[in-house]
Amino acid sequence: MHKLTLLGTGLIGLFYTMALHKRRGYDKIYVVYSRTRSNAQSFAEQWGISKWTTNLKEAIEDPETDVVVVALPNFLHKEAVIMAAEAGKVVLCTKPLGRNAEEALSMLEAVEKAGVFHGYLEDLVYTPKTLKALEFVGTGALGTILWVRSRETHAGPHSAWFWDPELAGGGAIIDMGCHCIEIARNFIGKDIRPVEVICWADTLVHPIASEDHGIGLVRFENGVIAQFEVSWAFRGGMDLRDEVVGTDGTIWINHFLRTGLEVFTAAGGKGYISEKAESESGWLFPVGDEVHALGYPNMFDDMLNALDEGKAPMETFYDGYVVNAIIDACYRSVKSKRWEPVQLEVWRGKPKQTEKKRPIEYEDKYILIKEERMPNGKVKLLLKEKHTNKIVEKIIPK
Amino acid sequence: MHKLTLLGTGLIGLFYTMALHKRRGYDKIYVVYSRTRSNAQSFAEQWGISKWTTNLKEAIEDPETDVVVVALPNFLHKEAVIMAAEAGKVVLCTKPLGRNAEEALSMLEAVEKAGVFHGYLEDLVYTPKTLKALEFVGTGALGTILWVRSRETHAGPHSAWFWDPELAGGGAIIDMGCHCIEIARNFIGKDIRPVEVICWADTLVHPIASEDHGIGLVRFENGVIAQFEVSWAFRGGMDLRDEVVGTDGTIWINHFLRTGLEVFTAAGGKGYISEKAESESGWLFPVGDEVHALGYPNMFDDMLNALDEGKAPMETFYDGYVVNAIIDACYRSVKSKRWEPVQLEVWRGKPKQTEKKRPIEYEDKYILIKEERMPNGKVKLLLKEKHTNKIVEKIIPK
Amino acid sequence: MHKLTLLGTGLIGLFYTMALHKRRGYDKIYVVYSRTRSNAQSFAEQWGISKWTTNLKEAIEDPETDVVVVALPNFLHKEAVIMAAEAGKVVLCTKPLGRNAEEALSMLEAVEKAGVFHGYLEDLVYTPKTLKALEFVGTGALGTILWVRSRETHAGPHSAWFWDPELAGGGAIIDMGCHCIEIARNFIGKDIRPVEVICWADTLVHPIASEDHGIGLVRFENGVIAQFEVSWAFRGGMDLRDEVVGTDGTIWINHFLRTGLEVFTAAGGKGYISEKAESESGWLFPVGDEVHALGYPNMFDDMLNALDEGKAPMETFYDGYVVNAIIDACYRSVKSKRWEPVQLEVWRGKPKQTEKKRPIEYEDKYILIKEERMPNGKVKLLLKEKHTNKIVEKIIPK
Amino acid sequence: MHKLTLLGTGLIGLFYTMALHKRRGYDKIYVVYSRTRSNAQSFAEQWGISKWTTNLKEAIEDPETDVVVVALPNFLHKEAVIMAAEAGKVVLCTKPLGRNAEEALSMLEAVEKAGVFHGYLEDLVYTPKTLKALEFVGTGALGTILWVRSRETHAGPHSAWFWDPELAGGGAIIDMGCHCIEIARNFIGKDIRPVEVICWADTLVHPIASEDHGIGLVRFENGVIAQFEVSWAFRGGMDLRDEVVGTDGTIWINHFLRTGLEVFTAAGGKGYISEKAESESGWLFPVGDEVHALGYPNMFDDMLNALDEGKAPMETFYDGYVVNAIIDACYRSVKSKRWEPVQLEVWRGKPKQTEKKRPIEYEDKYILIKEERMPNGKVKLLLKEKHTNKIVEKIIPK
Repeated sequence: MHKLTLLGTGLIGLFYTMALHKRRGYDKIYVVYSRTRSNAQSFAEQWGISKWTTNLKEAIEDPETDVVVVALPNFLHKEAVIMAAEAGKVVLCTKPLGRNAEEALSMLEAVEKAGVFHGYLEDLVYTPKTLKALEFVGTGALGTILWVRSRETHAGPHSAWFWDPELAGGGAIIDMGCHCIEIARNFIGKDIRPVEVICWADTLVHPIASEDHGIGLVRFENGVIAQFEVSWAFRGGMDLRDEVVGTDGTIWINHFLRTGLEVFTAAGGKGYISEKAESESGWLFPVGDEVHALGYPNMFDDMLNALDEGKAPMETFYDGYVVNAIIDACYRSVKSKRWEPVQLEVWRGKPKQTEKKRPIEYEDKYILIKEERMPNGKVKLLLKEKHTNKIVEKIIPK
Repeated sequence: MHKLTLLGTGLIGLFYTMALHKRRGYDKIYVVYSRTRSNAQSFAEQWGISKWTTNLKEAIEDPETDVVVVALPNFLHKEAVIMAAEAGKVVLCTKPLGRNAEEALSMLEAVEKAGVFHGYLEDLVYTPKTLKALEFVGTGALGTILWVRSRETHAGPHSAWFWDPELAGGGAIIDMGCHCIEIARNFIGKDIRPVEVICWADTLVHPIASEDHGIGLVRFENGVIAQFEVSWAFRGGMDLRDEVVGTDGTIWINHFLRTGLEVFTAAGGKGYISEKAESESGWLFPVGDEVHALGYPNMFDDMLNALDEGKAPMETFYDGYVVNAIIDACYRSVKSKRWEPVQLEVWRGKPKQTEKKRPIEYEDKYILIKEERMPNGKVKLLLKEKHTNKIVEKIIPK
Repeated sequence: MHKLTLLGTGLIGLFYTMALHKRRGYDKIYVVYSRTRSNAQSFAEQWGISKWTTNLKEAIEDPETDVVVVALPNFLHKEAVIMAAEAGKVVLCTKPLGRNAEEALSMLEAVEKAGVFHGYLEDLVYTPKTLKALEFVGTGALGTILWVRSRETHAGPHSAWFWDPELAGGGAIIDMGCHCIEIARNFIGKDIRPVEVICWADTLVHPIASEDHGIGLVRFENGVIAQFEVSWAFRGGMDLRDEVVGTDGTIWINHFLRTGLEVFTAAGGKGYISEKAESESGWLFPVGDEVHALGYPNMFDDMLNALDEGKAPMETFYDGYVVNAIIDACYRSVKSKRWEPVQLEVWRGKPKQTEKKRPIEYEDKYILIKEERMPNGKVKLLLKEKHTNKIVEKIIPK
Repeated sequence: MHKLTLLGTGLIGLFYTMALHKRRGYDKIYVVYSRTRSNAQSFAEQWGISKWTTNLKEAIEDPETDVVVVALPNFLHKEAVIMAAEAGKVVLCTKPLGRNAEEALSMLEAVEKAGVFHGYLEDLVYTPKTLKALEFVGTGALGTILWVRSRETHAGPHSAWFWDPELAGGGAIIDMGCHCIEIARNFIGKDIRPVEVICWADTLVHPIASEDHGIGLVRFENGVIAQFEVSWAFRGGMDLRDEVVGTDGTIWINHFLRTGLEVFTAAGGKGYISEKAESESGWLFPVGDEVHALGYPNMFDDMLNALDEGKAPMETFYDGYVVNAIIDACYRSVKSKRWEPVQLEVWRGKPKQTEKKRPIEYEDKYILIKEERMPNGKVKLLLKEKHTNKIVEKIIPK
């Protein structure tokens, strides 16, 4: 049972609180901090939180709480995390960890130096569908992973600071690419080193200084590719989709816009549908339980179970640091217009590895390329002759 | 915080336990009962339950527990519920409440006489999608409800007793129709009286005495129709879909087979996919968090919150009784091959009501029937002349 | 190569003409008839049709044309068909054939007496998906068919005469139930006799004398059930879905509202989307090629190929007659509130048949009821002991 | 009415023939050529084609045919096209036009020098869904186009020559990227110049010399981005999906794997499902009319209508040349690991253009960035102060 200090009362603080307070659970927020007095007070009242304050230090050092949850804008993470680490508190920090790898690394060093438990609140890794998909990948159902695509697009974030690259550390890529990259790392294997990136970004629509659209590829040491697509210029709602392709299978995940609840309303105009929904009449696609679909309850369960059991959670500050380092390379690539290496001062995964694919043999002298059933019902084999490297076809009757 | 006695360690007992024990919650099962010693013991060990027993009375009367959860086969509900009521315990009973309305009514009388809190564990009313859909209906987004269709089909249940009509009280209709009927009642309004039913059922496939397929219509006093389709002869997995049609809108819910997680595996054969999945390779459609998708955690939250707050839960034994009465009428209709009245000795909803539809007028002398945009881009109005009742058309240019 | 006389310039005449004139085909409409002069003339101009007339006899007896296509309102079918038969022309008549079985039978007798080729223009049997699904059923992929569900719902038809039960022969059931019933017959086997029906219908929304919603079950001699759901009170577009369930498989067809083309528009208001679409902004679901998706080109190909090859087409007037006879029984059942026999004066299918199901044996003394993989990964068998009829369980380890 | 010479009897020749011969059309193949005698002969017999030959020149110069359809492997396009142009015949050539831009340009020059009608057989631009989506884009429903994503992935092609980079001109990118690029050009506007590309490719799975996976971005002069993803290493069938994102809307197209026909079969093993389907039991997703879904009939209609009307078809050799030039740049980028310019010796679109976005003003002193409805039901505006460039928030009550 834990008492938590929550720093921040924006949308993410709200979702965290819903995850903890909307169920019959024994972990509750006990102190809430906001920079704005009225926000702190009304949030505390709404959610039955015992104390509220506009004093950051007081919130962090409250003697009744043992866990500090950082749900502040990006530019305030570092200060809050270091203060919490120095206070000897457990620190859970929202995504992205830092505005860049340098900030992230200093936060990682702070918690490790202080010896406090730390968790990186990357919620999308904890969605029911991601966890189930990771189980499938774990059973070998997909064979060897080859390609992971992750996408988060909507019409833009809901608070002013996101749109200022100084305060946020970038635009759509730092905001949402961090989700995509960490989702991909979980499917690919976190101990596989990300080697280099190519990334394009542009400001397509909005009158802002940061990018509102970005696409990037991350190449891992074993040749696997993670692809992310992020946009603040997408119309139609919040689109969260992931795809995992392996030698033996594929997974398609749709977390949000098409999950089996479809509503047509000619009446319309009835209020909140789901996060970043854009229409209020016609066909709507709400999410049954948005907070659960986004992974928040599972995330806190994992974090606090790990804390109680003296283990590391699924996502740590080190993961947050790796993500920031990849994003830094992305921003360099946007400028240089070429592949850029991922600079990881600290690498805790596998050393360089060499894996050999074993080709499938066919009748001694061939290697099988593929087989396919044709419209006439017959199966065609494509074979490579081992000695000549010539590719030949062979028809197998129905 | 509650300590629960769980009666029964079958699939439904397992799901209930997963709902309570797989999260950081303060309500836990403290005693588990099974008719089979080894089941009781291994279940207790697996889920960290303090006590196990094969003595029903001992389980129910355990002085440490205040809530009894009945997760037994249908033919054992009545005995367990009455015993628990007499022990002064809170009683939560799985669906269907009784094998027929007579059993259900005697259970209702027992808990009301004993003055104990009682809840009807109809989980599908609590799925995230049903709850969200009920919110939409509550806002008026669908206008007046006209028709609710609910369907549950799969390839048949997993325990022997389901297949014996004596023990179960029937076949597919008592097993799954109870879900469909109660889902429909929630959308239509529980205070609207169900008046009559027509039902067809047959044993299409299995070598059994009870029906493995049934389709029924329930007419409510205000003319709304609830339609259910249940089958133990469906192939492809467990299909749980609901549809709500109102004057101004439609809701389609897919709880299980198409929820946004799609897996292709050529490797296959890797174990449990989702409840009643039938294939283990090719395209699979697992559910991210099956227990949540089926409504179990929300159901226990509602039940125990209501208990703590001294309110009635969303689903009570009275609801279970109404459902049984409707199903009794269905079975009569299967035999008589005609509409049969729903016999409700106890009716606690609205008395007979008379609602008048107000037609939409158009230019004083017409009533609007409908408008539609045609392929040539023009809009056509269909109007009824008030005085002649003649139906005429009127074209409105683009 | 054929020259056709088209009778009727409404929506159905338009779709027929698009099917024939929008491709590089050698069959063209040569004469078009409408009761309204301006319609006949403008239709002929738009589609490059050589002649137009408001004289039915002249249209039918035009010496240049050999095929008469009846695309008139229901109450005009009989007169036109008989006139065409007497003129010795090929007759293709739109659905439903008659307003009732009596009309249909007299039309059937007229064409057979005249010895002319006749086709029943039931387009939905010819959609690309229905044809492909029929192929699957033909291969045995679904085993023995058990249940066919067909549904057509939208917000109501586009012409005044549909809404008048005298002119149309009924309401939503005669209008759309005819599609559903014939789709089902194709999957079940046209030579299996429909025996009896139960049907409910009501006027839920519109200020009209005919039903705007109906649900019916048709029982065939082999126990197979066809279920139809039709409504003019559905909101959200035109919903055309079919389902076929067999002992070994299932087919789900969605012809219209969810076919893989999804459009979100915040701009909106741009004209025709698809037939009976109800929204023009937000998420829209247009159909790529509506005319093809509805089966019209395939239908004319089959009709005219059959004509050229001296064979019967897939759908004849006899089929139209059987459909009308089933619908007549439906309307009787709506009134009598009980199952009503299908009265077929002429039956050309199989005589009464008796098919025996062979149960699957298991280890000599058991009959297999079903098997299912449980959440713990083990497979459970449900078995019936042959001698005792007792149902027992058997667990098979992973 | 045209008589066609078909060169090639592989899968693409088969689809072309099905498009022309499976309907009651007046254009037919009259001569068929294959390098293999038995293929030519059996193909001619199967499809009722009058003449067959293994002599290319004879096929092309046949005095009865006026149109030559090139459906040969990539390395044979140039020779056949030039021979047909010199013979004064209409030339329709399958995709990609050449193995590279140099080959494509020489073909373009040959047909233009000869003054013959030429069409580029890019079928996916003609699918019913692409055409309908282009209509939507044309109405302004999506506002200004920003991003087009097109994807084609499957488990690899069905003939040996595809796998040999010398014969094919590359691997998955030349094979399928050509589709994606031309789809994107149609949505973006063919007169907008493609400027530069970045592309990654690798051989992830197969024992071959060419790439089996590639992802590329094409930047157009107006800043719009076309993204393609192609793979011969995808498992689960043939995945053809396109996405178009504009300032005011989004289009999602799924041509193949999820089009509204879903089949579950436990029986399985019944033959051909759809092109490149990988499973034959469990859940299958066949396409109703594959040939139509892939655009072939529409393509020939457009080509031959254009020919008859003396107009250019939707897709010409010039389009094929531009596509090849973009792919050449892609292959250079794969090697250089940086953005590469698209080298177009011949550019027939718009000269360099400059378009200015006009920001949306709000209350004089602000520019609107976005608005969003929050979970509490209120709408939040994000505004940029014109003078300070500061981003501020404004809450609008429900």
